[in-house]
Amino acid sequence: MGRMAGDKLPVAILGPLGTYTHEAAFHAFGHHALYNERSSIADVFEALSTGELLGVVPHENSIFGTVVETFDLLRSTSCSIIGEVTLKVEHCLLVKHGVQLEQIKRVFSHEQALGQCRGFLGDRLPQAMTIKTPSTAAAAQAVLNQEQDCAAICSRMCATLFDGLEVLASGIQNEKSNFTQFYLLSSSNAYELPPPVSRDLQRKALIRVVAPATADTTRILDALKLSTLRISRRPSLEPIPFHSTYFVEVQGDQNSNSTKAEWRAEIETGLSRVKQVGAEGSILGFW
Amino acid sequence: MGRMAGDKLPVAILGPLGTYTHEAAFHAFGHHALYNERSSIADVFEALSTGELLGVVPHENSIFGTVVETFDLLRSTSCSIIGEVTLKVEHCLLVKHGVQLEQIKRVFSHEQALGQCRGFLGDRLPQAMTIKTPSTAAAAQAVLNQEQDCAAICSRMCATLFDGLEVLASGIQNEKSNFTQFYLLSSSNAYELPPPVSRDLQRKALIRVVAPATADTTRILDALKLSTLRISRRPSLEPIPFHSTYFVEVQGDQNSNSTKAEWRAEIETGLSRVKQVGAEGSILGFW
Repeated sequence: MGRMAGDKLPVAILGPLGTYTHEAAFHAFGHHALYNERSSIADVFEALSTGELLGVVPHENSIFGTVVETFDLLRSTSCSIIGEVTLKVEHCLLVKHGVQLEQIKRVFSHEQALGQCRGFLGDRLPQAMTIKTPSTAAAAQAVLNQEQDCAAICSRMCATLFDGLEVLASGIQNEKSNFTQFYLLSSSNAYELPPPVSRDLQRKALIRVVAPATADTTRILDALKLSTLRISRRPSLEPIPFHSTYFVEVQGDQNSNSTKAEWRAEIETGLSRVKQVGAEGSILGFW
Repeated sequence: MGRMAGDKLPVAILGPLGTYTHEAAFHAFGHHALYNERSSIADVFEALSTGELLGVVPHENSIFGTVVETFDLLRSTSCSIIGEVTLKVEHCLLVKHGVQLEQIKRVFSHEQALGQCRGFLGDRLPQAMTIKTPSTAAAAQAVLNQEQDCAAICSRMCATLFDGLEVLASGIQNEKSNFTQFYLLSSSNAYELPPPVSRDLQRKALIRVVAPATADTTRILDALKLSTLRISRRPSLEPIPFHSTYFVEVQGDQNSNSTKAEWRAEIETGLSRVKQVGAEGSILGFW
């Protein structure tokens, strides 16, 4: 029954390795996990429906808003959300060990990251040429294979991942307040996160609500009688134009200290009230 | 004071001419308007803030969901929404007058439209080559300038717009139920749509709500005491990570026959209740 020493928990992540999703996953599962890169958010969900136990996907960025692909997949998934990680998106300048700022003539990164660090590049590396790569992690890989005059803009994670690189500058993005939130997914709702992750978190849950097309949405959400943090919406999968699926993030009472079982019971009572007013609600996860 | 015969109402639309936004605008304003094409949704809002009276922008598609750019601009606009148009997105096959299906060897269109009509193309024009254009309207223009072996996939509007083209087949998209909704914008909230558009519409309004970051959103929306059709959300413009601006579409009682002034009063009463529970609400438009 017991897992052997050296066994690592497989975790499907939006790849490649070294991206911010990898960093978020590492934040949750650390060295206990084996991170399997997938090429899209849909592929992470697919991995979970075909045997993988855990997965990590982004669901909201503080500047750009919800990640539409994640919510579209949450419309029909059988996975459970078992927790959440919030990560500060902090671009770093990575170089080969010992390389100084003055030596840098070429900066590699994903187009978006290059744009997000325009201020730093203009001020500190005005002479450097910028070169686009398919991802920020690919930029780190490119620098490893190049001369001493190169740098990559990527996550801090890449310095851990690619032996031979170090962080020369961090937090170099124009926008200092940029956070992304990730859902930790499991194919089994019985999986419990280890205490270092689950500790200190307020009770939360994500609830999916599908109401008749003409229903008063506020009245239906009010039937939950749970404190609402966020409401997101996507077109429902029903063949009715402009019919919506709502995703309601709720939180428990801050002072209640309820157990996970008590929190689940509270949500289920709310869902039965939603049913009474003519809509369908289901738990996508509670943590 | 009176406008001279021949004067046309200028309307800023997401261009180029012949797109679905143009078709929606024509549905609202017909031949009374002069349609000025703008290259982005932001440019339409910009036109309204610098003197143009009217504008039309898409805000939701029944398959792809909300148009994020429109809602991002509604976070800070001073324009008013004065009405709404729902359009069935129906791709048509346009050819030069008299051209038969058997003659077609090349089909021009925007990449998305070509993808959306893959079934028709595979069944009826399996030998035809597909050629990408920057917009569906550009495809119609291209066909006008080519030999008799060409067709364009675009809106029906293009057959009216480009003299010399006719509709050979309509409703050729794979997905038969595809609708887009558009907002009619005005730089003056005093502008009244002419009766042919405003008639037969149920009273509706779009309300913008900004609540404290930790507030219970459902409780705040419930304070409106108005029937909610849809709730949309975007990151707020405040420098607080994960703070949201909500857009709440509400409708009046179907049987109330209230005047526009009565409807406005009802909304304003709701907004004062929202203020009492600690949030800020404002009317983006009512119609």
